[in-house]
Amino acid sequence: YWAEQYPFEERMIEINKYPQYKTNIQGLDVHFVRVTPEVPLGVRVVPLLVLHGWPSSFLDFYPMIPVLTSVSPYRDFAIEVIAASLPGFAFSDGAIRPGFGVDKMAVVLRNLMQRLGYKKFYVHGADWGSVVLSNMATFFPDEILGYHSSMPTNVSPLQLFARIVGNYFPSLVVRPEVADRMYPLSKFLNKIILESGYFHLQATKPDTIDIALTDSPAGLLAYYFEKISVGTREHYRYRSDGGLQLHYTKEQLIDNLMVYWISNSMATAGRIYAESFSPRYFGLRMDSIPSSVPAWILQAKYEISYIPPWLYKLKFPNLINETTLDTGGHFLALELPLVLAEDIMKAMVQFRSQYKGHDEL
Amino acid sequence: YWAEQYPFEERMIEINKYPQYKTNIQGLDVHFVRVTPEVPLGVRVVPLLVLHGWPSSFLDFYPMIPVLTSVSPYRDFAIEVIAASLPGFAFSDGAIRPGFGVDKMAVVLRNLMQRLGYKKFYVHGADWGSVVLSNMATFFPDEILGYHSSMPTNVSPLQLFARIVGNYFPSLVVRPEVADRMYPLSKFLNKIILESGYFHLQATKPDTIDIALTDSPAGLLAYYFEKISVGTREHYRYRSDGGLQLHYTKEQLIDNLMVYWISNSMATAGRIYAESFSPRYFGLRMDSIPSSVPAWILQAKYEISYIPPWLYKLKFPNLINETTLDTGGHFLALELPLVLAEDIMKAMVQFRSQYKGHDEL
Repeated sequence: YWAEQYPFEERMIEINKYPQYKTNIQGLDVHFVRVTPEVPLGVRVVPLLVLHGWPSSFLDFYPMIPVLTSVSPYRDFAIEVIAASLPGFAFSDGAIRPGFGVDKMAVVLRNLMQRLGYKKFYVHGADWGSVVLSNMATFFPDEILGYHSSMPTNVSPLQLFARIVGNYFPSLVVRPEVADRMYPLSKFLNKIILESGYFHLQATKPDTIDIALTDSPAGLLAYYFEKISVGTREHYRYRSDGGLQLHYTKEQLIDNLMVYWISNSMATAGRIYAESFSPRYFGLRMDSIPSSVPAWILQAKYEISYIPPWLYKLKFPNLINETTLDTGGHFLALELPLVLAEDIMKAMVQFRSQYKGHDEL
Repeated sequence: YWAEQYPFEERMIEINKYPQYKTNIQGLDVHFVRVTPEVPLGVRVVPLLVLHGWPSSFLDFYPMIPVLTSVSPYRDFAIEVIAASLPGFAFSDGAIRPGFGVDKMAVVLRNLMQRLGYKKFYVHGADWGSVVLSNMATFFPDEILGYHSSMPTNVSPLQLFARIVGNYFPSLVVRPEVADRMYPLSKFLNKIILESGYFHLQATKPDTIDIALTDSPAGLLAYYFEKISVGTREHYRYRSDGGLQLHYTKEQLIDNLMVYWISNSMATAGRIYAESFSPRYFGLRMDSIPSSVPAWILQAKYEISYIPPWLYKLKFPNLINETTLDTGGHFLALELPLVLAEDIMKAMVQFRSQYKGHDEL
């Protein structure tokens, strides 16, 4: 389909329907989409930085953009969406020097927002984007007005300890309705072992596999589709079609592959694992440093892991809300764009109420 | 070099200098090289099955074959070498049904030897070949006359426990001269984590990566050379050339790649990890069942892991000798063919002395 039927010209128009830019930050060309709503008098435009993960791209946010940037009589604000490509992903340069992990990305992308004129802004992230933004909220708590995450994770020793305790006394750790998302721990660990081979390889030898993935479109597709399939629903691994078309169009999936293929960025993107799963990065103990930024988390039923709100509060004491979805997988922006967009807007309303609308400073 | 300079015609002649055959065993075409020495009266021909591992092939044994099959006035026997391709590797068919692990390979390859007319025979193996033969020696202790391994491993719970104890009391477990090959355990485990990403991925999602490796020669080469480099010397990972040409010719390395590429067997070969690192296979507890077969192990300095002879005796109580090399890596047949061949012949002399020459039954 990709080779013979994918309507490239058409999709190029679709992909370019939102304005895209590049600007050089700390030596790296950073690519981003920027969509600014036109608003009537009295409606404020509020900036929201949204960050994708691996193997996703800025395109994941396209279905949400019309909703997020819409003007409503029930809100006194509209959202300007800045969807940046993580350094090394898509059309953003990758770092040449080693040691460029999610913490460094957080600084670069905060500086992007400064460049765009935003001293303060809201953020939403998925997958690695969520981790980058958690770092950003830790480094620059006074600049991030609110942090929305669809994949809240925390791997501090204290949190891991609580998870283990919960295996024996689940009611101490998690409310019963969602206990099966965490326990039994053996089931969770089995899943992690089964699904983290790519993570292990990319965290240790990213370039070894990336030669093949940047040389072979078929190889790239297989590697990517397998991730999308099990990330959407773990049990889709038993379906011969991977269940992909139950949630996404072929065009959506190939568009994203095209972004990796055309930009030749699979190798530089894959290094995020090696650079962020390293002694250097763990030494920063970012997950143990609380951030005062107001946070709002959404947890889809089929997300890779679940974290109880009280545990997440160790990192974000100002956690305002947890939305628990009874459906949805890891690639939520593509799968349920309306649900996610609505949740982000609800969060923005709450965040803004903390500032009583004075979020322009 | 591979695309433009590799002298394919010449190498084809080299690769075909020993006779190769296929025969169908249990529905699988099994490929093997068979070299029978011409001997004077009074010299007995003794069969030796040699098995390669991953990502090696039958070609690894080519440099040893002239030595192994030579006739010497100091020996009353000469060796017939049968170098078989493991099912799924090179020109041996892979199994179509799942659940075909090293245990099943052991049965197929024992049946190959029966087909060739050998009710009893000697064996030598490296890497997975060594594991297959350990299984064979467990299933058919009366048919295997002697087991020589250049990678003796054992992962029974008892042995793992002894390894952990040794971390605190090394002198209880290993003699001081080679203690640094096992301890500190943290160093060993770090190495394993760093080097086992490919293992993790292939044990869980072999086909995901194999699409890329069977579609891209460059990808296959990168993946393969990285393994050869760190398998030879772990610290070669810090060399920009991987240290490959310190031990092997370019032709040797590409010959082996050619075998995988031409036979399109990277995908079926890679599945050995998934099929042999499975609950089904572990459930057999093969490593906990002792075998009475006489064994002889050779441990190279830079082999992936080291096992003390007393521990290996829990599996092979009739362990005759351990040769400890002060050099050499994982791909020993290619790196030090003369050293390995000499050790195998010494072992054969000892094995035969147990039978007082009556090993023809």
